[in-house]
Amino acid sequence: MNTPRQLVNSIVLPAIEPTSPQWLSKARAHLDVLTKPLGSLGRLEDFAAQMVSIRRQDYAVPLRKAVYVFAADHGITAEGVSAYPSEVTRQMVLNFISHGAAINVLAKLHNVDLNVVDVGVDSEFDGIDGLLHRKVRLGTRNMLHEPAMSSEELTEAFNVGLNLANDVKAQGYSTVAVGEMGIGNTTAASAITSLLTHKPVDLITGRGTGLNSEALKHKRQVIEAVLKKHFGDLRKNTPAKPLDILRTVGGLEIAAMTGFILGAAQRGVAVVVDGFISTAAAAIAFAAVPQVRDYLFAGHQSEEPGHQALLEYLGLKPILALNMRLGEGTGAVLAMPILESAMCLYNQMATFESAGVSEAKD
Amino acid sequence: MNTPRQLVNSIVLPAIEPTSPQWLSKARAHLDVLTKPLGSLGRLEDFAAQMVSIRRQDYAVPLRKAVYVFAADHGITAEGVSAYPSEVTRQMVLNFISHGAAINVLAKLHNVDLNVVDVGVDSEFDGIDGLLHRKVRLGTRNMLHEPAMSSEELTEAFNVGLNLANDVKAQGYSTVAVGEMGIGNTTAASAITSLLTHKPVDLITGRGTGLNSEALKHKRQVIEAVLKKHFGDLRKNTPAKPLDILRTVGGLEIAAMTGFILGAAQRGVAVVVDGFISTAAAAIAFAAVPQVRDYLFAGHQSEEPGHQALLEYLGLKPILALNMRLGEGTGAVLAMPILESAMCLYNQMATFESAGVSEAKD
Repeated sequence: MNTPRQLVNSIVLPAIEPTSPQWLSKARAHLDVLTKPLGSLGRLEDFAAQMVSIRRQDYAVPLRKAVYVFAADHGITAEGVSAYPSEVTRQMVLNFISHGAAINVLAKLHNVDLNVVDVGVDSEFDGIDGLLHRKVRLGTRNMLHEPAMSSEELTEAFNVGLNLANDVKAQGYSTVAVGEMGIGNTTAASAITSLLTHKPVDLITGRGTGLNSEALKHKRQVIEAVLKKHFGDLRKNTPAKPLDILRTVGGLEIAAMTGFILGAAQRGVAVVVDGFISTAAAAIAFAAVPQVRDYLFAGHQSEEPGHQALLEYLGLKPILALNMRLGEGTGAVLAMPILESAMCLYNQMATFESAGVSEAKD
Repeated sequence: MNTPRQLVNSIVLPAIEPTSPQWLSKARAHLDVLTKPLGSLGRLEDFAAQMVSIRRQDYAVPLRKAVYVFAADHGITAEGVSAYPSEVTRQMVLNFISHGAAINVLAKLHNVDLNVVDVGVDSEFDGIDGLLHRKVRLGTRNMLHEPAMSSEELTEAFNVGLNLANDVKAQGYSTVAVGEMGIGNTTAASAITSLLTHKPVDLITGRGTGLNSEALKHKRQVIEAVLKKHFGDLRKNTPAKPLDILRTVGGLEIAAMTGFILGAAQRGVAVVVDGFISTAAAAIAFAAVPQVRDYLFAGHQSEEPGHQALLEYLGLKPILALNMRLGEGTGAVLAMPILESAMCLYNQMATFESAGVSEAKD
């Protein structure tokens, strides 16, 4: 299990151990002696047990938490698939640096350290502090005409994430959220979703940041044309390889998130995915290395229709369902106080014996 | 609107102003200029707008938050309707005081001040610090044989809550959660739910703290007998008055929560209800003074089947759905970081103008 496997695209996929059934059982047994009716904390008990089985040890609380927001642009925006101009990717990165975005507010409130990573914004950030400079390219290529990335670009973007996951572990974080910013990236995520789940484009393509009905129709046509160009009409019968999907119709930030998620899981760090785009990265990771799934929490259920299809594909049930569709990691960070609550309950509640509380009759 | 109305049972129901449509509109307009796609924070935007319309002014963050846990015993436990002995009510109150219960952990983690109120535990707490001594009676009467409370007892318990709501406002809290502890109180809540919603007892009666199937069947028979004794076979055709329901088949903690919820709403304090029992109190409050509804947030969706019926009756959609069924205010307090997140986003995010971010095309 520990030998890295060489795969296509020069990417070395990390070998991921299954989470620990022994620690899962130990956690379940501890939960059952806490002063509450058996199972009455519902999914909080599942969260605590999964967390412990991921880490193979107990957690100190408060949890050490970080969120990584990967930013990149998309060549496909030339086709008019987004309600916002692509300059907004850069503008929002600057907003992150100035602490003005939603993710800044939520990360600060919930004590989550925020890291913004430029993997491929179509604009230089030379000399600007407050973000991790990991630019691979000034945005992806226009996937209507050519693959979004070359093999080398994919590998480089993937490794950006993989290496950052190394840092996460080295810095002592136990729980990490994954988010993104990239005008046009719901188009990439819809293409990925269609290829992985074999669901029709119309069903899994939504309004993104707010397209009107006419523009949504156009976006769907563009995605159909992209899929036809690269995977032909027979794609339903011949499943594409996950890293080929990622390279051809993905994004630089999606590739980096895929590497990040796999790297974090390899190191026993629990990963909270956010909405449609980061879950597309998680789905690629799962298709490539299925064991990653047990390291994942789905922070929330996004309003984007493709997200539901990806959660089903992954077999994940979201923690929150608040009709959000913002990205940036906001849904993942908003779920962190729930995970933290689960671990605090696990660590701090009295037992029936210690509190002198009677147990249930027979 | 400001004249208190005298009703049955000597209870003076507070007059509650509607929440402010002007402040609601103002809040919506502010949310629309923050740096995010329109509406993309989903229900968080609804929460922030409702909070502002409740208070008729903005909130400082962090919110000042409290949870009140009302404890009492139930005479109906003599009929064997609970998996736990009624001594557990007292034991859990002592566990609250010793900081060992789930609500202690969650309240501490989320900076919510915890108040435990003895309204009617069947045991004396003389000389014990750390709880609010407001005992009305040593548990309710056995409602299989007589009304759970006399009119005087109901009024006293209701006023315990009403007066505590006064203190909440005076102490500067803007948001308050309501919870309870009382072995046997799902039986009372199911009886209330059946009378308010006219749904069959079998549909809205669950396992409480963990009854087996045989004991659940018995619990349902007891509730049927209680309803028949006090309200007869014709109850579906002649709706009972809410305060008569509360007096006859309620509980001292449920009566106190009803007064507390109404009092908090009257004072413009947002109220987060917890699970089945506290929502039964909210439903009685709503039946008596419908304007209270817009001051309420449903913290979570409980596993108890009657809770769904009450939420529908109230027209409330829960914030969380995590299969919890513990009570103590745990689901309400767990929702507080979500409400706090909504208010922090409202207060702290940059606007498109201030951040220099482009808005959507046309």
